[in-house]
Amino acid sequence: MDLITVVGLIAAICTTTSFLPQVIQSWRTRSTKDISLPMYAVLVVGVFLWLVYGVLINKLPIILANGITLALALSILFIKIKCG
Amino acid sequence: MDLITVVGLIAAICTTTSFLPQVIQSWRTRSTKDISLPMYAVLVVGVFLWLVYGVLINKLPIILANGITLALALSILFIKIKCG
Repeated sequence: MDLITVVGLIAAICTTTSFLPQVIQSWRTRSTKDISLPMYAVLVVGVFLWLVYGVLINKLPIILANGITLALALSILFIKIKCG
Repeated sequence: MDLITVVGLIAAICTTTSFLPQVIQSWRTRSTKDISLPMYAVLVVGVFLWLVYGVLINKLPIILANGITLALALSILFIKIKCG
């Protein structure tokens, strides 16, 4: 694996896993008033479209990274909608 | 431009612009306690590495999308650090 691919993989791991601490914090505190609802609404649509794009061009890394990100972003969106 | 490229472009526009409402809300309210600091710390590193990846493979859409996202995510991180 070349250095450029390694940089891309670390980038994908960071941007995907970054949402996990927010899911944990929002789940534990049930306090989400400082979180922007429009941000997560648009983010979920965007990540879903990245997932569709990954399926259309048949690239497993894009499918995997965006599938996990979609699950995490949807979790934050649901907690936000429930807790306000 | 084919349909697959259009899907990818709309995806990039959504995931990039999604952070703007959060910047505006956090800037206006100065209230960021519900926002996860580790999320934005890891996200900023990840988006920066995507930007480096875009430069290394010389792809303008990756450079542009991640350059804008980096500026927005850094803004949220700075407000979070300042306002706690």
